[in-house]
Amino acid sequence: MKIASFNDHRVGIVDGTTVYDMTAALPDFLQQLPRQRVNWLVAHWNELRPAFAGYLETGKPLPLSSVTLLAANPAPQHLFAAPANYRKHIGELGERVVTKGGRSAREQGFFLKAPGSLVGAGGTLFLPRGSQRRFDHESELAVIISKEARNVPREHAMEYVFGYSCLIDATLRIEKDTFEEERSMRKSFETFTPLGPWIVTADEVPEPENLRNQLWVNGEVRQSANTSELIVGIAELIELISSVLTLQPGDVIASGTPEGVGPFKPGDQVRIEIERIGSMSLPVREYDMRSPRPF
Amino acid sequence: MKIASFNDHRVGIVDGTTVYDMTAALPDFLQQLPRQRVNWLVAHWNELRPAFAGYLETGKPLPLSSVTLLAANPAPQHLFAAPANYRKHIGELGERVVTKGGRSAREQGFFLKAPGSLVGAGGTLFLPRGSQRRFDHESELAVIISKEARNVPREHAMEYVFGYSCLIDATLRIEKDTFEEERSMRKSFETFTPLGPWIVTADEVPEPENLRNQLWVNGEVRQSANTSELIVGIAELIELISSVLTLQPGDVIASGTPEGVGPFKPGDQVRIEIERIGSMSLPVREYDMRSPRPF
Repeated sequence: MKIASFNDHRVGIVDGTTVYDMTAALPDFLQQLPRQRVNWLVAHWNELRPAFAGYLETGKPLPLSSVTLLAANPAPQHLFAAPANYRKHIGELGERVVTKGGRSAREQGFFLKAPGSLVGAGGTLFLPRGSQRRFDHESELAVIISKEARNVPREHAMEYVFGYSCLIDATLRIEKDTFEEERSMRKSFETFTPLGPWIVTADEVPEPENLRNQLWVNGEVRQSANTSELIVGIAELIELISSVLTLQPGDVIASGTPEGVGPFKPGDQVRIEIERIGSMSLPVREYDMRSPRPF
Repeated sequence: MKIASFNDHRVGIVDGTTVYDMTAALPDFLQQLPRQRVNWLVAHWNELRPAFAGYLETGKPLPLSSVTLLAANPAPQHLFAAPANYRKHIGELGERVVTKGGRSAREQGFFLKAPGSLVGAGGTLFLPRGSQRRFDHESELAVIISKEARNVPREHAMEYVFGYSCLIDATLRIEKDTFEEERSMRKSFETFTPLGPWIVTADEVPEPENLRNQLWVNGEVRQSANTSELIVGIAELIELISSVLTLQPGDVIASGTPEGVGPFKPGDQVRIEIERIGSMSLPVREYDMRSPRPF
């Protein structure tokens, strides 16, 4: 199933060009904490799945084009990310890796992005106005965690995957010869983590490490790879992170990006597509950092 | 008021050696999401304050020594932190700062810790067993945010402070001549962020930048400073972070640590005390990283 978050944190199932509003299948009290709906759904999926599977009978159908898609999970407790994590294309540079200093997540570990940086497929990617700095895009497969995970060995790790989504990891680039700001800040500007267009449940993605992962800016391919080229695979990422702390249902792991990271600027249109998951295209705009409510 | 989180995510007011259980003053539906109770309380404090102020009449009194204190907020959406952020003691090294490369949060920006690293005053600080690495303590004043904050100028920033708490920022130390792991990972091991013993509401802390901040290991003073020595003050930290993204009610900012950062090891007892806030003392233990439920 494709599970979408939309409008005022409603939850629905996407089928073709229709989204079936299934918010009524969730407990009423979540009206008080609507941002928690997807976390709740993930944590209680075993009980909720039959109701959601009946979406054609019970869901209220809406044209997909009529709703505003929010981040596939608007409020995970954690948003983990792996550093650049793909082998160069076979035949191009062989086994050389594209990570900083040739180090993968195996050595660097994970970093954190702020959940407050998430935005949905119906949103806009905002860059701070007036900045002379460069901002880059990174195209990533996101993994959504199904249940509490602590010290999970990689051979059992895939049992903790709820589903997958597309994720653009936007970054304030480090300038040469200047001091490096904290990575978790450079990547946490509001709207710097488009996540969507929805979550595809794991049962529909039998081979998550064999998916084309592509990103375009203004229609021009910038990144094109396959998750088969991941250096640190999904299971090993879960093993790594869960050796440090407990992952929560709904947590998101950005699995790293392939070569082709490049800049975007206000006025651009950025599009990500991952095979079997979906695609989303967001405009890039600038905003006034001095405004109390910039967007 | 001193607001404590304890036992199975109950919420109470601490007065002397008694905690008055006020969980019943919160909406019943939070029984479904008990970890969200403190976030809810903070977000709805204007309406809830009168009820909580009547704790002597309506709260169920319990000896403080009989409860297990949890992290003062067990599940903030964000846990921000400033790099080392104190001037050296006046008269010792003058204006020299203790930050890496002499850069403060003004240049480095903030970093993120995982909320999953939080633990309360009644908990234990666990180090991974068998590690040959060094772990350090940092003693910090924590600021709890009261309401959504976006692009807040520093002259209004203190209006967004709900209260204060003590925070120990434990860290896996970077080894010389080895590759540096991601800071947000090195600081996010489970139990690496003791936060407590409670939240003291801002009205009881008229001068948050004039508080003694001290940390002991096994009774020996390791860090001793005053928040008057903060390089980047509380208001400027809120201005900085809110220029990047929207802070949420209940979010926590660790305001940075003074000189005297040093190692601790299994068997140690670490104690933090911040004037007007309180003190807490946690044992340091080691755990088996291979266990699925290490603690």
